[in-house]
Parts: sequence; C-alpha cells; structure tokens
Amino acid sequence: MSYIKDYIKENRERFFEELFGLIRIPSISSEASHKSDMIKCAEHWKYLLKQAGADKAEVMHTKGNPIVYGEKIIDPSKPTVIVYGHYDVMPVDPIELWKTEPFEPVIKEGKIWARGADDDKGQSFMHAKAFELMVKTKTLPCNVKFMLEGEEEIGSPSLTEWCAEQKDLLKGDVILVSDTGMIASDIPSITTGLRGLAYWEVEVTGPDHDLHSGIFGGAVANPINVLCKMIADLHDENGKITIPGFYDDVLVVSDEERQLLAGKPFNEEDYKKAIDVKALKGEKGFTTCERTGIRPCLDVCGIWGGYTGEGSKTVLPSKAFAKISTRLVPNQDHKKIAQLFKEYFEKVAPEYVKVEVRPLHGGQGYVCPIDLPAYKAAEKAYVEVFGKRPIPVRSGGSIPIISRFEEVLGIKSILMGFGLESDAIHSPNENYPVENFLKGIETIPLFYKYFAEMK
Amino acid sequence: MSYIKDYIKENRERFFEELFGLIRIPSISSEASHKSDMIKCAEHWKYLLKQAGADKAEVMHTKGNPIVYGEKIIDPSKPTVIVYGHYDVMPVDPIELWKTEPFEPVIKEGKIWARGADDDKGQSFMHAKAFELMVKTKTLPCNVKFMLEGEEEIGSPSLTEWCAEQKDLLKGDVILVSDTGMIASDIPSITTGLRGLAYWEVEVTGPDHDLHSGIFGGAVANPINVLCKMIADLHDENGKITIPGFYDDVLVVSDEERQLLAGKPFNEEDYKKAIDVKALKGEKGFTTCERTGIRPCLDVCGIWGGYTGEGSKTVLPSKAFAKISTRLVPNQDHKKIAQLFKEYFEKVAPEYVKVEVRPLHGGQGYVCPIDLPAYKAAEKAYVEVFGKRPIPVRSGGSIPIISRFEEVLGIKSILMGFGLESDAIHSPNENYPVENFLKGIETIPLFYKYFAEMK
Repeated sequence: MSYIKDYIKENRERFFEELFGLIRIPSISSEASHKSDMIKCAEHWKYLLKQAGADKAEVMHTKGNPIVYGEKIIDPSKPTVIVYGHYDVMPVDPIELWKTEPFEPVIKEGKIWARGADDDKGQSFMHAKAFELMVKTKTLPCNVKFMLEGEEEIGSPSLTEWCAEQKDLLKGDVILVSDTGMIASDIPSITTGLRGLAYWEVEVTGPDHDLHSGIFGGAVANPINVLCKMIADLHDENGKITIPGFYDDVLVVSDEERQLLAGKPFNEEDYKKAIDVKALKGEKGFTTCERTGIRPCLDVCGIWGGYTGEGSKTVLPSKAFAKISTRLVPNQDHKKIAQLFKEYFEKVAPEYVKVEVRPLHGGQGYVCPIDLPAYKAAEKAYVEVFGKRPIPVRSGGSIPIISRFEEVLGIKSILMGFGLESDAIHSPNENYPVENFLKGIETIPLFYKYFAEMK
Repeated sequence: MSYIKDYIKENRERFFEELFGLIRIPSISSEASHKSDMIKCAEHWKYLLKQAGADKAEVMHTKGNPIVYGEKIIDPSKPTVIVYGHYDVMPVDPIELWKTEPFEPVIKEGKIWARGADDDKGQSFMHAKAFELMVKTKTLPCNVKFMLEGEEEIGSPSLTEWCAEQKDLLKGDVILVSDTGMIASDIPSITTGLRGLAYWEVEVTGPDHDLHSGIFGGAVANPINVLCKMIADLHDENGKITIPGFYDDVLVVSDEERQLLAGKPFNEEDYKKAIDVKALKGEKGFTTCERTGIRPCLDVCGIWGGYTGEGSKTVLPSKAFAKISTRLVPNQDHKKIAQLFKEYFEKVAPEYVKVEVRPLHGGQGYVCPIDLPAYKAAEKAYVEVFGKRPIPVRSGGSIPIISRFEEVLGIKSILMGFGLESDAIHSPNENYPVENFLKGIETIPLFYKYFAEMK
C-alpha cells in the first residue's frame, strides 16, 4: 500500500525522535529509585497517544505502577482492537558492558541501541505510530484501545485485577501485542502458543529418623530410592507422561499447523552443539520443535535428600524431596493438572513410605488458532510486507498475562513480534533493527485493514 | 565346671577392683589432650597381662597409639588363641547427662556404670581374668597371645599395618574377640557375619549449562530424571539388584544356619513401630533378619541436583548427583563390586547424558562359618554356661578390622560378645551388667577347653 510506505518515509526521522524521547525516561520497574520515572513515563505515553490521535487518554491508578489507557472509537459497530504493551524496562547492570549509554539511544549499523529499544518501548511505539498513520491518512477501519502497563518486567502484579475491574472499558475483539520475536529479518513468524505451568514440591518419608544403613539396609525402604522409582515411573518408554488423564485436554494440533511449524528453520546438529549433548530425548512421534511447542512435558527442577556433603557417609535417610514441574499446552488447565498430579502421586505411593505433594505455582497455556480471523488478518499483512507467509511458532515458555487476558476478558491475543534473537533484550547493548521497527509500522495498519474486512 | 565357678567366686571382688583401675584411666583416643592417658593405659595393660600370667608383655610402638602385646606359649604344638581388644574409649559428652562420674566406676543395680564398662575395657578384661584363671588353676590348654589396640574408636588406622609387620609374632589358630553384644541376658548369641561395603558418587551431566525449562523442556533429557530412572532400574520388581554379576560371589547360607537365624526373637510390629513405617520392603524370598544379615543391599545415601531452595524456580539443570552404597555379604569382594558397578552404571548411561562414577570407599564383609571348629567350641561353651544353644547372628553393619585380620593374617575371628543393647555404649551412662561380666569369665575358659579338644 503506497500510502503507508509514503507516510513512513516522510515521517521516519520524527518517529525516531519521538521514540528516543520515550526511551530516555529510565523506567526500570524493579528499582524503587525509579518510581518517579514510572509516573513520568506513563504521563509521556498519555501525551504520545493524544498526539497520535486518541480521543481520550489517561493515566490510571493501580496498587503498583499506573496503567496508561487511551482510545479512539470511530464507530461502536466496528471491530475493536486492543493494543497491549509495557513501558517499564529491565535494569541495565552490568553497566560496564554497554558500548553506549543505555538511556541515550543512538542509531548505528542500522540498529537503535538502548535499553527498551526493542523490549518493549520500540515495539509498543510502532503501534502508536501505526495508529497515527491510520488516523492521519483517514484509513483507520476499527476502534482502537491502548493499554500500557508499567510492571511487565516484574510479573504484572496489578494488571489482572485492573482488567477485571475495567471489563466494560476493555470490550474488544482482539488484543494485539508486539513483545515477542520473529525467526529472522526475512523469516516472519507469529507466536501462536505459549505453554502453561504446574509446579509441585514432593516429600517422601520413609522411617521417622535417619537409620544406620548397615543395620537396616535391605529391610527398610529407602525414601530416595522410592522417590527415584516414582519419578522414573512418571514417563513410559515412549517418553509419554503416565499420569492417567494427563493428556485428556491436550489440544491436538492440525496437520496443517504442524506442517507450517515444520517450516521453522532448525538445525539439530547446531542445537545439540549449543548445549553439548550427543542426543536429544523426548516424546516419541514428535519433532524437537513440536516437543517444546505443542506437547506438554514433565521435568524435575530439583531433588535432594540424605547426605550430600563431601566423602562417603553411610545413611538410610528418613526423607527425600523433589521439585517437579510440568509445562502445559493450550486447553490443559493448570489447576486441574495440579490436582491430578497430587492425587495420582500420593495414591501410587507404596505403603512403605508416606508421600506429600504440595502444589506451588501454576499458569495457563495459551494458543492462537491459525484459523482465527485475527490470525488470518495478521498473516495477510505479513505476506504483503515480507512477501512470505509467516510461520506460526509455538514457544515452549510462558507469558502468563496473555493467558490471563483470555481468562479475564475472554479475548484472544495476536502476538505480532518484530524482535530478533540478536536484540539482546534484558542484556547489555539491547538493540532493535531500524528495518524491523519500520516494517512493524508498515505491517500493523494492514492487520487493521484485513481484520476489519474479515469481521 | 566347678573349678571355674569357684575361682570366680573367690576372686570376683578383686576382679572388679582391677577392672576399675583400668577404667579410671580416661583413654579417649579421639581427644589429643588424652595422649598421655593412652600411654598410661597401654602400660597398665602390660602390667595386667604380666600379673595374669603372661610370660612376655610389651607396649609396641605404632604411628599412632601403642599396641599392647602379651603371650604365654605353653607348647608350640598346641593351638594358639589370639585375643583382640581395645583399651581406648569414646568421649563422654554430653557430660551433663551422666548420673555418675564416667571415669569413676560404681556398681549399682547389678551393673557397672562407667565409660568403657562394656566397650571394651569390661569385655576385654574378661579375657585377662579368664586367662589368669586358667593359668592359676593350671587348666590353660592353648597358647595365648593378646593384642590390645588404642585406636579402635577412631577406625584402627595403625593396626592393619602393624599386623602385616608382625605376621610371625601373630601366628595363631583363631582370633577371639569380645566387642559385640548378645541378644539378651538369657539368649546367648554369637555374631557370625558382618557386611562389607562399597560406596560411590555418581555424576550425571545433561546439557553443559542450566537451561530454561520452558524453552527446552520436553526436547532435552533432564539429568535428574535420567538419574532417577537409572537408580530405579538398579532394582527389579522382586527387590533384587540388577547389576549383572552382582550376586555371583554371594555365599549361600545353609538351611541349617537360616533355621538358627530364624530363632532370633524378632517382632515385626515392634520393629516397624520403632521406625514408624507401615510396611517393610526388601528382597523377595528372605525374612527381614536375612535381608540385613545374609543378603547384600543397595541404598542411595544422598542425592542432589537443580534448584533446592524455597519456592518454585523452574530450571532444566545441567547436572545431578547421588551417593550410592551397597552392603556386601561374605565372599563378595568390595573391589570387584566397586568396578562392576562403575562399569555397568557408565555403560547403561543413555547417549543423551554423560555419567561418571567415582568409587569412594570400601571394605570386605566377614563370615564365621558355623561349622568352623572354633565356632563349635564357642557354641559348646555357651551351652554349658547358659543352658542354651547360642544363636548365630549376622549383623548388617561392618567392623572393618575383623575382615582385615582375615585378609592380612589369614585367621578367622570368633565374636563372643557379652554386651547388651541396653549397655549404652558410646552414650552417657554406659554400663555393663555384673552378671554378663562374670558369665563371660566363666564361658571363655570353656571355649579354650573345647577348642583345644577339637584341634
């Protein structure tokens, strides 16, 4: 679309200047000394939204850092896009490794160098400028709502409650987020899945005190041996988790999506080399990318018991412990799984030990179906800008707030991330390629266009 | 034999006085401040042996505390009994729990109360007095050699080397030891077996650094899960150890001895209650006493890896460790087993991890066959004094020096212990029943008598 390219060309220098103004506010959410910067940054975003064309913009109070809300309602009957982003950034330590000042952005070698250049000031600001573009060129086809939080890097402690309180305000059709990455500058991708999590601590008690391993060894069950056996039995010979009902709710991924996922460039030799293992291991019948993307897994994150010091003390210990986590895939409910595991693990405990399972933590997974109209719209937008169909990527990790949006607001998110792995987010010398920044501003209006047409 | 009973009756008060003189020397081997007491105690033993009738007695130098050697050779063609004991004792802390002075023995409630009253001053002194009795009554039927060390409570670091140096001096037919217990005052028993030991530390390495359990979980083998599976696979469903060749050298115990072992009073409900377990577990086809007495076992003494702090940190760790020990039974060579396990465990390591096994410690087991003439002689002596056949007891623990006597000198030991579980050895208020002390002095000369007759 030539009007998009033209507008970007004419205004790009100003876009940079405005982004730099946002970046210069050191809004580090984890450091109390930056409290006033959080307010300053929120106020600045309010100004940016108004300047870009919002009818209304305000800084809204929470128990933590404020949330910036802005909107432009062109017609209540038209679809509404909610843009989510965050204005807080990570600390800058170790400061001595930075080649430039973290809060004084510069453009060098085709990249913007600064803390927040990508995560998430650069990426969220693309949405402000794409919005401005649509307003100024009179091409905005949807209502728009912005919601920018200042606590993403510290786990979004206020946002869920705020969303629940603002359900009316946050009515909309899709949440649009640019806070993830793409495979490469020339390989566009959309993150379509995030895994959920359930985490337990288990305690196995054998005898009520440590025993002499000579006097009792062989006649009394050793809780470490028992725990090892119980953990070993959690997987079968095909790498499947043996907890009855564990896979019941796992969303089966269509052959089409599996084929698309397979398009993600992946070199197994490089992958193994990077972590120095001779062979990979996982669930039979699935590729490495599928094992981390579309399938759940179970890992022991920690284990301890008995004598762990130097040398060779003999003991038949009273207790053994483990921290066990599962990564869950969309449609698996972490609360249900937490209960399922607890009941199962306690039930299968042999009579010669006592087993206690304590659920510690959990979060839902997330999936964006690739036949969702919003996904189709994003796909079309990418094809137009990059000349290639984007690859739907299932990330093995978790972004808890995305699944919580769905739980609280009932709205799906589209994760149009334009970052690259080389952007060094959370690290010294964070950067964001100018090309990705501008391509993002180019792609976003096309998403609005196709999304409006499909609704 | 009335001459034995008569001699004891006439001399018992003097026996106590002499024993008390030995006990009053605070020969605590683990405390450097008692170094001069060790010398004093060794010199005192030399005097006691001469006084009892030894032709020769001397305090022999070692790198550590001296060893007291004494002998009476009545006829080189007669059998020779070597008496082993130790003159060192354990520390007395916590001193505030003692009801009497630890080194000022008193007789109360039919018991001698003092540190060393049983372990091993009381028990070893019985041999001095039995020897005196035989000399004075002109009934000594064997040559006698005494060897008393001052380092038993700190692991006998000097004794093995000393034995190797003194092989000629230590020629003999049997080693007689009173440093163990009997089942009850009216249930005599002889310890016929001690288990050996082999101990390893194993290290399992997966990826060369800790990984994000979301990004990699499901595709990369977790070394904790792998270690658990490898440990679980070390036992089969019948509780048998699966290491090929592990049982090859296990001495099969005769039906006769198993029947005798079964005579040991054992109440499974009390046993379970004492350690608070609902059920016992061990190798199929063997009783609890057999599982600890005549069968080897494998226990994990310690395990650790990954995150073991508070809360729920997710990680796919790089490494997992365990300390694994086996208790071995007579005829199993700990060096062979150490190598067998190392080779097996490293060989069965799946290709997606690296496994290193480090042998840490080992010791041979010991068995005294119940058809050994010396055993038969002891049995007859007990029958005569207690009116009951003694029960041969296989202890699950280890007394390394006993197997080393066999290795270095090629001589079997007879463990005629007269202590009781209630003697509180190593604890405050150690005591030794007067009855056991006197019965010991009565039984020992009968052993000599029957042993001489059988040779």
